[in-house]
Amino acid sequence: MAQQYQAQIYVTLRPSVLDPAGTAVQVGLMHMGYENVGQVRIGKYIELTLSADSETIACEQLNRICDQLLANPVIENYQFELQEMSTVASQ
Amino acid sequence: MAQQYQAQIYVTLRPSVLDPAGTAVQVGLMHMGYENVGQVRIGKYIELTLSADSETIACEQLNRICDQLLANPVIENYQFELQEMSTVASQ
Repeated sequence: MAQQYQAQIYVTLRPSVLDPAGTAVQVGLMHMGYENVGQVRIGKYIELTLSADSETIACEQLNRICDQLLANPVIENYQFELQEMSTVASQ
Repeated sequence: MAQQYQAQIYVTLRPSVLDPAGTAVQVGLMHMGYENVGQVRIGKYIELTLSADSETIACEQLNRICDQLLANPVIENYQFELQEMSTVASQ
């Protein structure tokens, strides 16, 4: 029986790639008086649900989804966490 | 002495707010054959470093930073994790 999974995916720029948006936030924070804030890097956080027969299959599929659509592997890294969603007992 | 902290901040749309980008990704995945993927929600993932005298102070400051700049509290929720960065011993 297919299980429902909840995935949390983090897509971040590779460390060698410049992040102008992050730098803009950092400069903005400095102007707001937060001078103790160092490097800021901005990425994406994606939550999705998927159904799969096993956690292994769900992981494989998520890797393909990230490579093909959610992340640009040339400039971005990704990582994800998978949780089985608790099914409500029918009692 | 001020400690260095690494913060991971997750900014997500409130559940009641529509997420057209997430829906577009979901439809895209369906067209790519991933018909087992359910709801997709897209948020921001921000990493930053800051120095503060204590974890409590760092938390208070991060809350202000999120409220003032990183998140729009009207339509977005945020949560963050703080880790003390290990200082390299000078030996």
